[in-house]
Order: sequence, then structure tokens, then C-alpha cells
Amino acid sequence: MSFLKVYALILAGGEGIRFGGDVPKQFLDLNGRMVFEWAIDSFEVSDKVDEIFLIINSKYKHLAEEILKSGRYRKLRGFSIGGETRQDSVRIGLGLIEDDEGVVLIHDGVRPFVPLEDINRLVEELKDKKAVVLASPAKETMAIAFSSLIPVVESIPQRDKIFALQTPQGFRLSLIKEAHVKAWNEGFKGASDDCSLILRYFKDEKVYLISGSPYNIKITYPLDVEIARVLISKLRK
Amino acid sequence: MSFLKVYALILAGGEGIRFGGDVPKQFLDLNGRMVFEWAIDSFEVSDKVDEIFLIINSKYKHLAEEILKSGRYRKLRGFSIGGETRQDSVRIGLGLIEDDEGVVLIHDGVRPFVPLEDINRLVEELKDKKAVVLASPAKETMAIAFSSLIPVVESIPQRDKIFALQTPQGFRLSLIKEAHVKAWNEGFKGASDDCSLILRYFKDEKVYLISGSPYNIKITYPLDVEIARVLISKLRK
Repeated sequence: MSFLKVYALILAGGEGIRFGGDVPKQFLDLNGRMVFEWAIDSFEVSDKVDEIFLIINSKYKHLAEEILKSGRYRKLRGFSIGGETRQDSVRIGLGLIEDDEGVVLIHDGVRPFVPLEDINRLVEELKDKKAVVLASPAKETMAIAFSSLIPVVESIPQRDKIFALQTPQGFRLSLIKEAHVKAWNEGFKGASDDCSLILRYFKDEKVYLISGSPYNIKITYPLDVEIARVLISKLRK
Repeated sequence: MSFLKVYALILAGGEGIRFGGDVPKQFLDLNGRMVFEWAIDSFEVSDKVDEIFLIINSKYKHLAEEILKSGRYRKLRGFSIGGETRQDSVRIGLGLIEDDEGVVLIHDGVRPFVPLEDINRLVEELKDKKAVVLASPAKETMAIAFSSLIPVVESIPQRDKIFALQTPQGFRLSLIKEAHVKAWNEGFKGASDDCSLILRYFKDEKVYLISGSPYNIKITYPLDVEIARVLISKLRK
């Protein structure tokens, strides 16, 4: 039995506000290649992935044009400019994929090192599940706090029930597209990831977590760039 | 006005189960000094800290004896063997401190790089608060999930309300000692940190979060040791 088509959507539309500095973190250089290019690489080399789409920050549109023209990525089919929020960018990206039957792997362009085997396991799980996400158990105790100048702890969930959600997050296209339509109709824009939308609009759908590598780091702070340089020397020889 | 006495309690009693390998992570070498010694250093150099106590893994008792005898740490007053759980070890450690009026900073021996200024700010806040913890905003979306072979997401708290709790966690001694007595009486042993106990037993006490450095990492996975080596070259020249 042949399987549904698999699309990857790479998000490189962010402004990098939390990071500081002049260049959004997805465009920083890591050993001669930008962070988001490392991310594209991971999907290009997986034989489970058929097509790749890219969302890019408007100021860096020329980068997407150059990469597309260069032919370096055989699977890269197109790109679009990002929206105001992450959620907006995903919605725009889903609009590039003219298929409602396949699956999409939505991936942060600031995560350069998702292992090939994690991508492939995710696709495998999507054969009989509609929403599957790479995640890692929380290393630290996490608290939910009332935000204020000095936050006050509201509750501390049991640590072994807390997981950090990585990307890619994988979905049946029909489901995630419908979730974004519902959010659009409601005027809801604040989702920090895509499974939040599934939980918000589809009480009966399950979002499954499978174990992701600790190497699949998200580059957020300047320190993370240093860490990424250490990882490169270990991961890609 | 003179301030209450400040004690540091360093926890190096763990078995390092999550880490793998033969040596618990607090005893790994980082540039000629063990991880937990880096941790002790941070409190030794703070002029806000008066005395230091240490909890150690029974197999490594000789290390504590050697360090104490060496006189290298002027403030180190004593040590004890750890208990079965982290919570047990803290309870034992609090028993070493014969003072109910001062404050205690409880610190994981696997966090080698808590900055001096973070320790000092924490002590400052403890002048008018009974429970204060260093914390950093969650970088990733966190999910609460039903644990099982393939966990299913139960809820996703709003990201800007979630904080990773670091250590040291600072408390008035009278409060944290009473919390541990209550836990002992209840037979509750599962606290992954100490503010969980405050929340559990003192509905009216507030636990405050102050911003901790991203460099205050917890060494959990082998990768973290590599990261720690990068940090040393940046932090301690």
C-alpha cells in the first residue's frame, strides 16, 4: 500500500525578538551555512519526505529566491513571506500546499539538528495517527506562574507529566488546515505551536508525543549558537 | 540593621539515573574540578553567604571528607549522606542547620554555574519574602501529558506563564523545615523541588520567581557536559 504524500513546512519567518542582536537567529551562520539551511537539509535527506515549503522573513526574501534558484534543494517547491505571528506564518504556509490528504511536518527554522531518524519515526507514526509531535521530558521542574514584575507561582505540575514540545510537529493536512480555519474565524492568533490549535478545536482528536533527541535544540539565546557549534562537530562529520 | 544568617545547602547525593554512565553527573570532571565543586565555589565566593553544608552520595563520602579536611572551602561546615530521594536529602540537609531564623539556599550540585549576582539578588529578595526561586521563562511550548508508552497531550499551558525552576531556591528556614516535617508526617516523598512543598502545605505563602541566568544549566545528559565545557571558557577566565 502506498502512503500519503509527506510535506515539510520550514518556518524562517521570525523576527528573533527574544534573541537580541541584528540578525534573526535563523539566519545566523553555523559553519558556513545558515541555521535554517541546516533545518532544510534534514528534510531534504529524508527519503520519507516528498516536498518542502519555506516561510521566510520579508527582509530576507532574497535568500529564499537564491536558494530556490540554486537548485541545491531538490525537494524545495516554493516559499512565502511570513505573517505577523508564528500562527499566521503556518496558515500562510499551509496555503502553499495544495493537498488535503497528505501529512505535513511543521518545523521551526531555528532548530537546525533534528535527526533523520526522528523525522522518519514521526512519518511512520502518522500512518495511523493524525497528530504526532516530537517531545522530550522536562529536565527541570516547571512552574505555572501569574505573570507580573515578580511572578508568583500558581502551580507546579508533576514533573514526569511535563514535556517540552519540539518540532517537527506532524499532522494530517485536512486536520491542521481545518484548525487554522477555525482559529482564523475566531480571530485567535496566540498559538505558540500547532498542537495547541488541535487541542483548542478538536476535543476528540488525540495529539501523541514521541521521544525526540536532546540534540534537536531550539536556538533562542546567544548561548545556543555556541552550543550548536559544539553539536555540529559531533553530529555531522 | 543586620540581616539573618544565610546558609547554602548543596545537593550532591544523586545517583544520576537519568544520565547513564558509571559516574553520577555531579562527580564528573570539568577542567580539573568536579561539577559539584564548581557549585560550592559559587557560594564560597559570595559575601552574602555565611555557611555551606553538603549532601553527598554514600559511595563518594571520601570526597566530602577530603574536601572538608583540605580547608579549601572556608565556609563549608559539614556534610551528610543523601537519602533515597531528592526530598529526603534536603530533609537530612536541613537537619544539619541548627538555626530556624536564617535563610537557606538549596542548590543542585549538578548546576555548576549559578552566577554570583544571581545568588546575591536572591538573598536580597529574601529580606522581605519567605520563598524565592531563580527561574527562566520556558523556551519551548510545554505540554502536560498522560504518561504512557506513547503519551497523549492533556493540556498546553500558555507559554508565557511557564517557567523552568532553577536552583538555588531560597527559603526562610522556619518555613522550609516545617514543610519537610509536614511531608514526613504525610509520608509524601515525590517532590522534584522544594517550592512544591511550600505550595502543597502553605496555601497562603507566596513563592516568588526572579530571573535566573541561562548559564545556570543543569547537567542531565552527556551533551550537557559538552555545553558546560563551552561555558567554562566564557564564564571563568
